[in-house]
Amino acid sequence: MNLYQKTKSKLYINITNRLTNIFQPINVIPKDAQRKNQEIISKSHRLMLELGIIRQANPGSFHFLPLGVRALEKLLHLIDEEMLKIGAQKVILPTLTHSKLWKSTGRLQDFGSELFTVKDRHNQTYILSPTHEEAVSDLIASVSQMSYKEFPLKLYQTTNKYRDEIKPRFGLLRGRQFLMKDLYSFDVDVENARHSYEEVCDSYNNIFSRIGVPFYKAIGSVGAMGGSLSHEYHYKADIGEDQLISCSKCGFYANTDFGGSDKCSHCNSDNIDISTAIEVGHTFLLGDKYSKALMANYFNEKRRSVPLQMGSYGLGVSRILAAAIEVLSQEQEMRWPLLLAPYTVIIIPPKEGSKEEGVIHHLTEKVYALLETLPFLQNNILVDDRIQMTIGRRMIDARRVGYPFTIVIGSKCMEEKPIFELVDLQKNLTLNLYEEQLLLYLRDALKNVY
Amino acid sequence: MNLYQKTKSKLYINITNRLTNIFQPINVIPKDAQRKNQEIISKSHRLMLELGIIRQANPGSFHFLPLGVRALEKLLHLIDEEMLKIGAQKVILPTLTHSKLWKSTGRLQDFGSELFTVKDRHNQTYILSPTHEEAVSDLIASVSQMSYKEFPLKLYQTTNKYRDEIKPRFGLLRGRQFLMKDLYSFDVDVENARHSYEEVCDSYNNIFSRIGVPFYKAIGSVGAMGGSLSHEYHYKADIGEDQLISCSKCGFYANTDFGGSDKCSHCNSDNIDISTAIEVGHTFLLGDKYSKALMANYFNEKRRSVPLQMGSYGLGVSRILAAAIEVLSQEQEMRWPLLLAPYTVIIIPPKEGSKEEGVIHHLTEKVYALLETLPFLQNNILVDDRIQMTIGRRMIDARRVGYPFTIVIGSKCMEEKPIFELVDLQKNLTLNLYEEQLLLYLRDALKNVY
Repeated sequence: MNLYQKTKSKLYINITNRLTNIFQPINVIPKDAQRKNQEIISKSHRLMLELGIIRQANPGSFHFLPLGVRALEKLLHLIDEEMLKIGAQKVILPTLTHSKLWKSTGRLQDFGSELFTVKDRHNQTYILSPTHEEAVSDLIASVSQMSYKEFPLKLYQTTNKYRDEIKPRFGLLRGRQFLMKDLYSFDVDVENARHSYEEVCDSYNNIFSRIGVPFYKAIGSVGAMGGSLSHEYHYKADIGEDQLISCSKCGFYANTDFGGSDKCSHCNSDNIDISTAIEVGHTFLLGDKYSKALMANYFNEKRRSVPLQMGSYGLGVSRILAAAIEVLSQEQEMRWPLLLAPYTVIIIPPKEGSKEEGVIHHLTEKVYALLETLPFLQNNILVDDRIQMTIGRRMIDARRVGYPFTIVIGSKCMEEKPIFELVDLQKNLTLNLYEEQLLLYLRDALKNVY
Repeated sequence: MNLYQKTKSKLYINITNRLTNIFQPINVIPKDAQRKNQEIISKSHRLMLELGIIRQANPGSFHFLPLGVRALEKLLHLIDEEMLKIGAQKVILPTLTHSKLWKSTGRLQDFGSELFTVKDRHNQTYILSPTHEEAVSDLIASVSQMSYKEFPLKLYQTTNKYRDEIKPRFGLLRGRQFLMKDLYSFDVDVENARHSYEEVCDSYNNIFSRIGVPFYKAIGSVGAMGGSLSHEYHYKADIGEDQLISCSKCGFYANTDFGGSDKCSHCNSDNIDISTAIEVGHTFLLGDKYSKALMANYFNEKRRSVPLQMGSYGLGVSRILAAAIEVLSQEQEMRWPLLLAPYTVIIIPPKEGSKEEGVIHHLTEKVYALLETLPFLQNNILVDDRIQMTIGRRMIDARRVGYPFTIVIGSKCMEEKPIFELVDLQKNLTLNLYEEQLLLYLRDALKNVY
């Protein structure tokens, strides 16, 4: 199946964002494929491979191709916007953490064979960090004489994390390298730490609300991370590896790890439901487990050195992307959250040699320029310049890849006042609109999400 | 020295970008410091540590603190803008590359003990990639049936790279983890590859021109990378590890590795100069060394499978930042390229309890809001809210950290029509300006760089 013929059109060369410019290798995967090393293919995994969003490099390890990078960067941008609102500051901690730090917190043993380790030429052992509680505590500990006045402090990063999974599976959902956004909060006492915890949780609620996929916040188990309180963010999906118990009476959600599966641990009702879900975020109120072990202290008003109270908050960035696609897509058609689609709009110009082409092909560049006046559509519109293909065929492809809005420059554009066909994939609507209506429609559809 | 007192002012809490909100641990390093493991401190290394831009985690491995991240992200943004202009597409290749790929190109041996390697639970050996020629060739090879119509293709990424340096030194200039932007070009024949090579080199010229630090493009040796042609980009600095030979007659530049150090290898003149320089970029016309070894082929018009012609183009992103600071800074005062300063403008409001404070402190938020109307100053202005300190003391700190523009809300703002003091650090000018003049001055100063 030669879905993407790459013959470039000479007509739209002033537009950088042309489909034939994009490296998007199409790759058909046989049904019921079982990849080597026990990897199992989920719907999102299959669609992302088939449609050239990612490509497997090694078991549990993927190349992000250009459309995948665009979606990821949109998610990173959204996260950065929300982090700015709560005064969280971005840092970059090194990938390699010295094993001695993990020894001091006991996690070298807890994580065991899931850790990738590397020895340097001086025979020092480093960990390819799956998370950075040790590293960030050591950073804070290295700053001498921090005063109580410098807190609260919230540091975050979005970096690759590593885990030598026994069974990498479902593509980005359980990989051996994954992109994670991790935030660490530092406070002078339990009450302030609790306040930071609520503030970050609210911010994560906003992030998930803006992504738009229905999410469920559940009480979780603190597990090997430690601490006194933990919440998880979930998307419901059959392929999930977690079970959530939800109470129809009081609305309480918990992971069955934490809350059992018989009755509601909050109101004791047995009017409960169990659902399968994918964990996409996890927050922990850590207490002083890490700060004590690594001496991340501050000086209080009496100039006494006291361990900081910490929180840790993870968002599985690459996992959110895959899980959202898993939830939203159909078997043969990929769907993205509106904010994360690699391009929000795709324009389909007339077929080469058609009677329309000679008369109205110039409308493509005109509409492109018009829509680019909307700030959130800048560098966010794609032209499908495979004009040797029929409009209908290209519309099918646009649906499959899941661009939220498709604009067709077709026969109705031959009218004295051109009429554009707009397909709104999320609302499942096709509309015939004049140019100015098109602009207004897109402005209104997008103004609430951007 | 308690340079940064952190007592937060209650006056400017509506402004997120306040100095007391920033995690910027000040850290005084004794003169002639020799760090453990032979690490040597250069001016940029020392200033970046002292002023809380980076912090050492392990030998050759650094935390980027919030101001450092801001500068890095500005550089990444600049690079992305230039990449879009030449139609290069962003990808993300995994950090870990299977050692078998490096074996097939012979580089497992060439790099030897400089490679960090890791074994997974199945006893497979992976490399923490210092560069990705093998990985990207393998990616292209995995796409079946690529046609000549799909080329030229230019893929790039900006990711962490790893090298187990014998002697990490000069901070970010020679670290064991570093941020690199690497681009790979694929073409159907030597002539087209040469064209891509010129195009990317032109783009790199633009990037270095926009950064604004004087740079020198020299012929370089292809070394272990292989290929037929190579250029290097350099900043001149005493601590550099390269020697450039330049010809006063024909203007030719070469690395002495390639061009000897006696006479010009271009015009044979012995009217030459030798200077010490830091390599900040390197380009290679690779030929088919990697594509042949890894079967990165395409089908030509006769449906015959032919190895692709490749190019490889690296920019040392974290190194550019440090090298620019090395070139521009004075011993005790850091200087940034205008485009890369963590904040372009810093505003210094009146001292607490001064006669000015009661009357004009509101001008701070007013000027802040006014300047934010300039698109390139959005989220790019900092308020120094350490109002317990004198204006003069805060001006000294602003100079030390090197914010390009300082605006003082001082006694001259008490006039009926307030006059603002503006310090332009790059031009070494202090100006007294009315509000509208301030806006015009900054707009003009910045419009050519953004």
